[in-house]
Amino acid sequence: MPTDIEIARAATLQPITAIAQRIGIPDEALHPYGRHIAKIDHGHIRSLAARPEGKLILVTAISPTPAGEGKTTTTVGLGDALNRIGRKTVICLREPSLGPCFGQKGGAAGGGRAQVVPMEAINLHFTGDFHAITSAHSLAAAMIDNHVYWGNALGIDLRRVAFRRVLDMNDRALRSITQSLGGVANGFPREDGFDITVASEVMAVFCLARDLADLEARLGRIVVAENRDRKPVTLADLKATGAMTVLLKDALQPNLVQTLEGSPALIHGGPFANIAHGCNSVIATRAGLRLGDYAVTEAGFGADLGAEKFFDIKCRQAGLNPSAVVIVATVRALKMHGGVAKADLGSENVAALERGFANLARHVENVRRFGAPVVVAVNHFHADTEAEHAALKALCRDRLDVEAITCRHWAEGAAGAEDLAHAVAALADAGPAAAPRFAYPDAMPLEDKIRTIAQTLYGAADVQIESKAAGKLAAFAQAGHGNLPVCMAKTQYSFSTDPTLMGAPSGHVVAVRDVRLSAGAGFVVAICGEIMTMPGLPKVPAAEGIHLDAEGRIEGLF
Amino acid sequence: MPTDIEIARAATLQPITAIAQRIGIPDEALHPYGRHIAKIDHGHIRSLAARPEGKLILVTAISPTPAGEGKTTTTVGLGDALNRIGRKTVICLREPSLGPCFGQKGGAAGGGRAQVVPMEAINLHFTGDFHAITSAHSLAAAMIDNHVYWGNALGIDLRRVAFRRVLDMNDRALRSITQSLGGVANGFPREDGFDITVASEVMAVFCLARDLADLEARLGRIVVAENRDRKPVTLADLKATGAMTVLLKDALQPNLVQTLEGSPALIHGGPFANIAHGCNSVIATRAGLRLGDYAVTEAGFGADLGAEKFFDIKCRQAGLNPSAVVIVATVRALKMHGGVAKADLGSENVAALERGFANLARHVENVRRFGAPVVVAVNHFHADTEAEHAALKALCRDRLDVEAITCRHWAEGAAGAEDLAHAVAALADAGPAAAPRFAYPDAMPLEDKIRTIAQTLYGAADVQIESKAAGKLAAFAQAGHGNLPVCMAKTQYSFSTDPTLMGAPSGHVVAVRDVRLSAGAGFVVAICGEIMTMPGLPKVPAAEGIHLDAEGRIEGLF
Repeated sequence: MPTDIEIARAATLQPITAIAQRIGIPDEALHPYGRHIAKIDHGHIRSLAARPEGKLILVTAISPTPAGEGKTTTTVGLGDALNRIGRKTVICLREPSLGPCFGQKGGAAGGGRAQVVPMEAINLHFTGDFHAITSAHSLAAAMIDNHVYWGNALGIDLRRVAFRRVLDMNDRALRSITQSLGGVANGFPREDGFDITVASEVMAVFCLARDLADLEARLGRIVVAENRDRKPVTLADLKATGAMTVLLKDALQPNLVQTLEGSPALIHGGPFANIAHGCNSVIATRAGLRLGDYAVTEAGFGADLGAEKFFDIKCRQAGLNPSAVVIVATVRALKMHGGVAKADLGSENVAALERGFANLARHVENVRRFGAPVVVAVNHFHADTEAEHAALKALCRDRLDVEAITCRHWAEGAAGAEDLAHAVAALADAGPAAAPRFAYPDAMPLEDKIRTIAQTLYGAADVQIESKAAGKLAAFAQAGHGNLPVCMAKTQYSFSTDPTLMGAPSGHVVAVRDVRLSAGAGFVVAICGEIMTMPGLPKVPAAEGIHLDAEGRIEGLF
Repeated sequence: MPTDIEIARAATLQPITAIAQRIGIPDEALHPYGRHIAKIDHGHIRSLAARPEGKLILVTAISPTPAGEGKTTTTVGLGDALNRIGRKTVICLREPSLGPCFGQKGGAAGGGRAQVVPMEAINLHFTGDFHAITSAHSLAAAMIDNHVYWGNALGIDLRRVAFRRVLDMNDRALRSITQSLGGVANGFPREDGFDITVASEVMAVFCLARDLADLEARLGRIVVAENRDRKPVTLADLKATGAMTVLLKDALQPNLVQTLEGSPALIHGGPFANIAHGCNSVIATRAGLRLGDYAVTEAGFGADLGAEKFFDIKCRQAGLNPSAVVIVATVRALKMHGGVAKADLGSENVAALERGFANLARHVENVRRFGAPVVVAVNHFHADTEAEHAALKALCRDRLDVEAITCRHWAEGAAGAEDLAHAVAALADAGPAAAPRFAYPDAMPLEDKIRTIAQTLYGAADVQIESKAAGKLAAFAQAGHGNLPVCMAKTQYSFSTDPTLMGAPSGHVVAVRDVRLSAGAGFVVAICGEIMTMPGLPKVPAAEGIHLDAEGRIEGLF
């Protein structure tokens, strides 16, 4: 099997205008970025509003392991396969973050014969959306200190500035800084720090906004600081939102690319899946539903974080009704959940698979609570055995009454995911999609929302909310934010807050260390354990091996 | 007269493919960014190498004043007028910096009927080149601290890291910071700071590189720190250059746009004109010379900084031979140099004009030293009087033996600059362009180079090099950098280092406070006085008034 990059390079891409035509987008509605990427004009997006919406399919996964599950690959393969069996399908993905490309080797555009292309462009600057978000965020940050510098008419309390700075690079040295040093001309010294751009609330706002007007309104609600009376100061107070919206105007138009098999893919937005909701933009998802009869999308991390937030935050805010959910698992990853070390994954081990199955089982049960029909996609790896796949299917059927389907899209492209496509289409076509049953109602108190998620979805005995965090929750409710959904910031590796507890731990206590208000995005973040919002580079960064070869092609990125 | 933005909006732009066709660029060689902007493929740029080069015209100016001179506007108007009189001309400009757009109102794409379009895109994200430069610089910065974090095999002395961080935003709070605070996981605390992206050495390298290979080699020579033995540590030592080149690969392709009158314009790169050389990219200038019979370009600030660096740094490194130099002046600005306050510029004042003429005279004499023929463009403003223009022309003729030509391209477009175009064409066509006579030979010691510039071009009595700076110059020479040209970082408002000394001061002493090695760009920076490498926002930033109107158009940016 050739490598991902070899497959991508060998592909003959269609002009993006041809891809657009297949879903009825005329040339005039496209803003090309080269020959194989285009943004879809705001005007065309608006013109779609009256169209009926297709069926929404969510692809989520078991708790991630170092073995790799292939969620994006499966999303692409499923989209390709649905098109192959004659269902007009649009794939909706998140944009990859630039910084991490230079840390660990590996892009985020699928793999094998289930990739979106051109993969180098998608993984690097793409259409500049994240740069626009970095710029908008940086402008707001500069306006905060500038406001204080010139007299601080809003009375901002410099000790209580919540809005940090951002950069789209893995740079641990910027996590914690003191700034405005060097004397009078540089302002009032204070503590600050940088997050990576995907952790910016501007990113979350970008991905939840319905349109430009909603974007600007949401930006205006972002609380950046408190004044000396402990009242919130927002970006609207700072008059920053008009210019930020101008900076984000082009970026908010969804990006159209293609898969290796020519399926249309909208790749747009990419918020963190811990301190934010981890889904691509609402604008792109809605566009996908109106341009296709099916839209296949994914959510970050495992279903405990990704699917829960997809339902409780994205679907709740945007009024989306998913028709089916695919949970991706692999034999390898389930064996790891069953206690096998990564080095030993090459050997058949049905017993370990059966132990690790508990992780998949809880995710299936959890997703079913939201009311959408579920199917399990078993992403085939070459060392898997027949016995392992048969055992997994039997476990799914016997213990969960859910169908598990082996997929080979990585090796075979769309043909390898045809069975999954038929199953998904059958589930989605069984009837009109119902509104999801959310994990909690809007009116439930914030603390109870956190407890409900932990107890019903994580298997926790209880939550332990630190007193400072509890005080902040009370203040949020007091300020009128009690109806917001909560966004759990928890390790993706475990149902618990201990990343080493694989499988399906129960009876643990979820400690909530801190909470943050994302009033623009429209959720309250509950921080459980240490959450890294600015990654670092490893000892030997991938950057050291990235270069142009003699023919000017990019090497070492993937 | 309608405003700049009204004129730009009323214009009907041609498809960029049609503009490209006029200078022989086939569609396949273009990477479109929307319908009116395209990058020219590296392969096509390489294919031009065998072509003969056209004539190079430099547009420079008197010392800038708050009255405004219109150097970019004149560059655009002259290019349009040359095309109008049948000379195939390509305009080569710098890309505007994003940050300053949000400080003082006003774009950097010309004005009136002499503009490059689409002006909103050019002034905002454009094709993302500056974002790519920010990313490449940020990666290098992260790799420095990451190297130290993981063991510091190169023995970097954290007190001697010269490579600061960058951001394309006016943010005074980041000028001086301490970083890596917060404990073991965040690295070793040290002092640092951010410059604006245009001040990055990566930007200067980008603009002086011949091609991708030269870019990578220059990046590798950037000295980022010293080790404990005071030996230089470079980006090559950190293995950062391959990935940086990958990040800059697309950006290094010149951007093609059009003027309001349909002239082709290459807008590419934009280094600071104080701590860097202030010219657009060598790649774009060379491409302009091979695509047109004439290429008109500009250099930053007044001729004392811009033209001097254009000759002594850009032409020297790239082997360019300018055929003519246009020095832009205005009656208004010369009256300011003659002592008139901005509020009083509306009244005729020939005596003040004559006093202020000294500034123009010195610039003309200076530029002539480089050997290229000179013409003065008097950019007409509506309050100017006939008597003032007549007086200025007579002064130029009688005292300098140089032609001064009134231009009305701002109000009239190309038709208003026809006389200037004829004069420039006559100068350029008079014979083959000779190699410039540089202000100093490569072999002259660095201190003497600084002294020569100050004495022969600034009218200074002497230079006073602080002992620390002198020691650094000696060390640079010792390390083999003595043959580099010098890049003067001085106020643009005066021939002296005192920005309030207008006109043509003499006998002053130029104090050199510090020097810096830009080994990748290939020059030594001499810092005279306070040079700001990270601007701040004003009390009422332009950002507060920037917004989208009801029709989604950008308001308040210009």
